[in-house]
Amino acid sequence: MMDDLITMGQQAQQAAQQLSQLSTSQKNHILKLVAQSLRKHTDEIVEKNNQDLGNADGLASSFVDRLTLDDERIEQIAVGVEQVVALQDPIGDIDKGWKTEDDLYITKQRVPLGVIGMIYEARPNVTVDAFALTFKTGNAVILRGGKEALLTNIQLVEAIKEVLRDNDIDENAVQILHDTSHKTANEMMSLTGYIDVLIPRGSARLIKTVVENAKVPVIETGAGNCHIYVDEFAQAQMAADIIVNAKTQRPSVCNAAEKIVIHSSVAEQFLPIIAAALKPYNVELRGDERARAILPDINVATEEDWGTEYTDYIMAVKVVDSLDEAIEHINKYNTKHSESIITDNYANSEKFLQRIDAACVYVNASTRFTDGFKFGFGAEIGISTQKLHARGPMGLNELTSTKYLIRGNGQIRE
Amino acid sequence: MMDDLITMGQQAQQAAQQLSQLSTSQKNHILKLVAQSLRKHTDEIVEKNNQDLGNADGLASSFVDRLTLDDERIEQIAVGVEQVVALQDPIGDIDKGWKTEDDLYITKQRVPLGVIGMIYEARPNVTVDAFALTFKTGNAVILRGGKEALLTNIQLVEAIKEVLRDNDIDENAVQILHDTSHKTANEMMSLTGYIDVLIPRGSARLIKTVVENAKVPVIETGAGNCHIYVDEFAQAQMAADIIVNAKTQRPSVCNAAEKIVIHSSVAEQFLPIIAAALKPYNVELRGDERARAILPDINVATEEDWGTEYTDYIMAVKVVDSLDEAIEHINKYNTKHSESIITDNYANSEKFLQRIDAACVYVNASTRFTDGFKFGFGAEIGISTQKLHARGPMGLNELTSTKYLIRGNGQIRE
Repeated sequence: MMDDLITMGQQAQQAAQQLSQLSTSQKNHILKLVAQSLRKHTDEIVEKNNQDLGNADGLASSFVDRLTLDDERIEQIAVGVEQVVALQDPIGDIDKGWKTEDDLYITKQRVPLGVIGMIYEARPNVTVDAFALTFKTGNAVILRGGKEALLTNIQLVEAIKEVLRDNDIDENAVQILHDTSHKTANEMMSLTGYIDVLIPRGSARLIKTVVENAKVPVIETGAGNCHIYVDEFAQAQMAADIIVNAKTQRPSVCNAAEKIVIHSSVAEQFLPIIAAALKPYNVELRGDERARAILPDINVATEEDWGTEYTDYIMAVKVVDSLDEAIEHINKYNTKHSESIITDNYANSEKFLQRIDAACVYVNASTRFTDGFKFGFGAEIGISTQKLHARGPMGLNELTSTKYLIRGNGQIRE
Repeated sequence: MMDDLITMGQQAQQAAQQLSQLSTSQKNHILKLVAQSLRKHTDEIVEKNNQDLGNADGLASSFVDRLTLDDERIEQIAVGVEQVVALQDPIGDIDKGWKTEDDLYITKQRVPLGVIGMIYEARPNVTVDAFALTFKTGNAVILRGGKEALLTNIQLVEAIKEVLRDNDIDENAVQILHDTSHKTANEMMSLTGYIDVLIPRGSARLIKTVVENAKVPVIETGAGNCHIYVDEFAQAQMAADIIVNAKTQRPSVCNAAEKIVIHSSVAEQFLPIIAAALKPYNVELRGDERARAILPDINVATEEDWGTEYTDYIMAVKVVDSLDEAIEHINKYNTKHSESIITDNYANSEKFLQRIDAACVYVNASTRFTDGFKFGFGAEIGISTQKLHARGPMGLNELTSTKYLIRGNGQIRE
């Protein structure tokens, strides 16, 4: 089935005008009804999901797991929508205000971005999650999910659209591409003038493709080659606890640590303690020459290792002679995501905080806290690793723009 | 001469690391020296400018005027750099801070964007202006000016680099492309991973080319099809004064008004007053049928007129029967830049402010105030007409990003 992207873009812009003017209570009312509609249509959704699963023969079991919906998972998705109801609506917030030398009163007010595009992969829950967050912030959304979840996604969107139609909300507030070809995805990435921002969610490969091909503005999310630097003034036990947590609590995610950088004055004493702490989790350690002189059984870390995000039970260890060398190494190889120093030294902590170039820089804490929920945002659209518009965990605020309202009494410019 | 863009990108990133760590007083010291260096090298700069002007045979006189530098203009440029010294440095500002449920103390701190690309046209003053603003905010800059100003621009950059070298600042803080071919410009627009943001400054055509071709993030600046809506509750004299100012005070710029939208209940009374006020400035009026019924001598406004930014002494007039119709018309045809309502009615002013989709929405004031200086920012990099990262006049703050600093005491994620 062919999608007419230009028409979809125009329809989304039209819907966005209505959405931008809805009150918070109207938006919350719709979201509550959407949660109910998902529960009501559970059987149809599961049926379509079974059809998708039937077409998924031969795919990896982890992939099939991400694709699968059952009654319990649909209930979780519905509860997720209800949680968005409870979040504060940023639209209308005044960021700042002042009076100019010409006696104009200016306020900078939060407004929706307009039309958001989402390109994602197997998980059908992203379909509903993306709608809930973009709708709460008054944006229209155009979705392009993975082809393996197409029938499920269409059914989920239909359950949402039913509520929109019944409540005189433009149903083009949410649209989904029925054609999941690369050609149509590329058309979507080129929809300049219609899509205000495109957010890819998924594998590093997907994100790279979008960043390299999109002509519309993109927020880059994802890749995390995160380091824990164990300073010469670190406590061994704290270092080991944080490294174990940052590596093993959920190794597949972007805020998991991939590298240990350790000061040479404590390496000999600490590395055996850290290695012993990681052993029960079967973490494969790789090291430079100096690390291997202390831990002779570990594998060699090559140049390629320093820049690799393993997202697996693997860590590489580098021994350095100074904080400066650690900072230089991290700034060279990191993906600007999350970096942590373990130290009891004040000056070193401040130097690390200021000189490391990353979205989130930690002292004495696990990189696993880089997360919209843990940050207290109540939601997470993704974690931006770029510097424009949003950096780090993105909550509802990052789905908004601003406009200036200027109130005068007849001013003209001299 | 060929430029190796990848090498330039790497050098800029390297320089950006040093720049991000300079203190405000260090940066101000360098800027003062740059102003002095420009004065000292006035003769060489004028000489190179004469060579550029010698190659500019056959170009329009307005173009040649923009290209020309003399002693007085170089002095103005030097004073401009000294004015940047006086601006507050946003780097290090804490936007907000809080404690999380895990007792992590998070602060969101302003940091440089990193590497900024500027693509611009004839005016050589942009070369120095771009350096001063990006340097003040701790960013490295890669410049690509117009080919007609190449020798002048190289000489200006050399006057800056001399100061950088003498003060142990990486001279790659500013780099300029020597090859002004389209091929090299396209390479610059594709320098993903090296350039954090590209800002085009110049004609609508230049900006369109950059927006449509760039793979690096772009901030779209420029085009302004701005409207003045004369409400049924407007004062005729205020409406006329503001329209005259918004059209004629400087018609070539993006915040000049291009359209009058007027309520039918006051059109018959007000339009002759407005037309009379515009007459001394030789403004050509074009109108829809109803406007021409009141002002029979004016030309016909076609469908194409409604979407056109004239940047000339031309205005088109549309008569509407309601505020809603005015808002619908403006939201359909505007370029999201600056729009103004003239009214004494409170409810209408608020409706216009909230429902018009534009960077700057005015009540009872000229659109000509959309300007970084008039807004009180002390500088202007451009006026963003996009919604991502920055919208409206951009000052120093818009040349920055943020990072999160997270201070813990051993926290791990459960």
